[in-house]
Amino acid sequence: MTASPRTVRVELGDRSYDILIGPGLIASAATEIAKRLKGRRMAVITDNNVAPLYLDALMDGLASVGIEAVSAILPAGEKTKSFEHLIPVCETILGARIERNDAVIALGGGVIGDLTGFAAGIVRRGSRFIQIPTSLLAQVDSSVGGKTGINSPHGKNLIGVFHQPDLVLADTDVLDTLSPREFRAGYAEVAKYGLIDKPDFFEWLEKNWQAVFAGGDARIEAVAISCQAKADVVAADERENGQRALLNLGHTFGHALEAATAYDGTRLVHGEGVSIGMVLAHQFSSRMNLASPDVAKRVESHLKTVGLPTSMDEIPGTLPPAEVLMDAIAQDKKVKGGKLTFILTRGLGEAFVADDVPASEVLSFLKEKHPA
Amino acid sequence: MTASPRTVRVELGDRSYDILIGPGLIASAATEIAKRLKGRRMAVITDNNVAPLYLDALMDGLASVGIEAVSAILPAGEKTKSFEHLIPVCETILGARIERNDAVIALGGGVIGDLTGFAAGIVRRGSRFIQIPTSLLAQVDSSVGGKTGINSPHGKNLIGVFHQPDLVLADTDVLDTLSPREFRAGYAEVAKYGLIDKPDFFEWLEKNWQAVFAGGDARIEAVAISCQAKADVVAADERENGQRALLNLGHTFGHALEAATAYDGTRLVHGEGVSIGMVLAHQFSSRMNLASPDVAKRVESHLKTVGLPTSMDEIPGTLPPAEVLMDAIAQDKKVKGGKLTFILTRGLGEAFVADDVPASEVLSFLKEKHPA
Repeated sequence: MTASPRTVRVELGDRSYDILIGPGLIASAATEIAKRLKGRRMAVITDNNVAPLYLDALMDGLASVGIEAVSAILPAGEKTKSFEHLIPVCETILGARIERNDAVIALGGGVIGDLTGFAAGIVRRGSRFIQIPTSLLAQVDSSVGGKTGINSPHGKNLIGVFHQPDLVLADTDVLDTLSPREFRAGYAEVAKYGLIDKPDFFEWLEKNWQAVFAGGDARIEAVAISCQAKADVVAADERENGQRALLNLGHTFGHALEAATAYDGTRLVHGEGVSIGMVLAHQFSSRMNLASPDVAKRVESHLKTVGLPTSMDEIPGTLPPAEVLMDAIAQDKKVKGGKLTFILTRGLGEAFVADDVPASEVLSFLKEKHPA
Repeated sequence: MTASPRTVRVELGDRSYDILIGPGLIASAATEIAKRLKGRRMAVITDNNVAPLYLDALMDGLASVGIEAVSAILPAGEKTKSFEHLIPVCETILGARIERNDAVIALGGGVIGDLTGFAAGIVRRGSRFIQIPTSLLAQVDSSVGGKTGINSPHGKNLIGVFHQPDLVLADTDVLDTLSPREFRAGYAEVAKYGLIDKPDFFEWLEKNWQAVFAGGDARIEAVAISCQAKADVVAADERENGQRALLNLGHTFGHALEAATAYDGTRLVHGEGVSIGMVLAHQFSSRMNLASPDVAKRVESHLKTVGLPTSMDEIPGTLPPAEVLMDAIAQDKKVKGGKLTFILTRGLGEAFVADDVPASEVLSFLKEKHPA
């Protein structure tokens, strides 16, 4: 038997929920679910990478506690976050005759979590939702906070809802099956929490990152601190009217790079975009005389050490010119009345929301970093 | 110039909003919008019945107050409440580069309001939304309360979100262009507010319904009382956990009849389904010894007087057998753990939520009313 998992509570009034973090949680998922939810019907949504590894174990577990479950297996990959796949998922959930106490379960990474959460959020104007994130990125980021959605030809995550899960089960063992590249991509978000407002955590990561990659207690610790960090921000600002925007550190540049590479995961995955984006955000902060250039160098150095890309020229293939990247930034969500909102920093772990960044400065910075 | 419109305030904390009710409100829409919203870009969604009548006036008005607007015209009819039409509406809104203070405007009846509200609710996880309802049904029902959505092959309104508008403009003049059949269908919902908990209003309608149909002050009064009634219920129970379910009086039977006629508006429109459903709910209440049979007779008599259908055998074409209607009821939203929730009544204007109605009783009642 495994020890009790760690629990992080996301405090959101009558929508509060627990994140359980620890080894072996897929094996004990059904028991943990049955302890907390009354429902006896569930719909499990997963993808064709995750299904062969964990779907049978989950379905058998659910059956063993008397929960009648159906499942749907979607193609793995970012392109699945589309109306094309959302529609049959909604129909699967409706076909399973999920009632008010029943739940929809997302078994997979961020793509499956975002898509399934969106479907759960709109079926019957909101159905119960359980996340079983199987990637590091999903465990420390997308499974906390209730953001769900799909992509549009106009940009990433532009269509979706806020829909909080009822329970999150983060099994840290499953991360052993991730490719090093995928683990590193998730690690970018872990480092982000240090860079937002936890310089001590960033320093701990600089010393302990190899243990986090190896597994065991350091990994559980890093996942738990990350979930707690995100939970704290979300509890203070559920709908992203203010401080929640800090979580977008590195994301405005990152999203633009993802758009510029047409969400082609062979060239750039989300966490890699965030890694480059965080370095750019620190360099831009230094250029704006907000922070010492040493901070940007220290961030770049650590991310490089773990094997993450830290500059645009590491992205395989040709990037569009700076003007096109700028256009993608302007179409991003963080725009008010034509002015640009960026997350910048005053030092290590001193990020802040800057809502009056001149577009001209960003464009000339991009041109400098990425000459045509 | 017209007099100031009546205002009904929907009290929902930081999501409170005004419903303006009166003549000439489409002509003054842009002024009313500019008074209340800072946004300078809007996307107007309408249908091919409404567009020739009011779209130019609205667009010209918006231009005259400096609001840049795009528009999309959808086919009129219930079938438009589908993913097929939702997707291009989302893309239109995104293409218009609507920012946080801008808004999406629904110009049309319930179908346009429900679909557009859903699109506004999911674009950027929630965009500002203005309703300009052009049918009586939309003015007194769907434009108040924030329910949005589309239909699924599994049933009506099964996919959607709660998304409150920022402003509702109910122009009572536009109701003059409705067909008598469409006006009557909306009137069924007006009568419903009396039957829920306002016996005096129902009595007033019995005496004044002809004036309401004719237009003028009686119509404004009926629309305002209806909006206020719905606003009061919604303010007390936004997410339909309790008393809001009272608004479904007549709707469980009504939705089953709409499903049984494949949402074919030539056979049955929503308000007609509600009319028959309200009569059935009163008859069933009497059969369960909850209310006197005289109440059901009085309700039937008034609805018949205004020209609404009051029994299943008035629906043109063949209805499926009672068992199939029962199946549609069981798939409706108001189901908990297999038990049926119905809105029943103890007398005129004394509706209540009954959450333990035996399915067997409903089925034998349906067989009695609709022998195979």
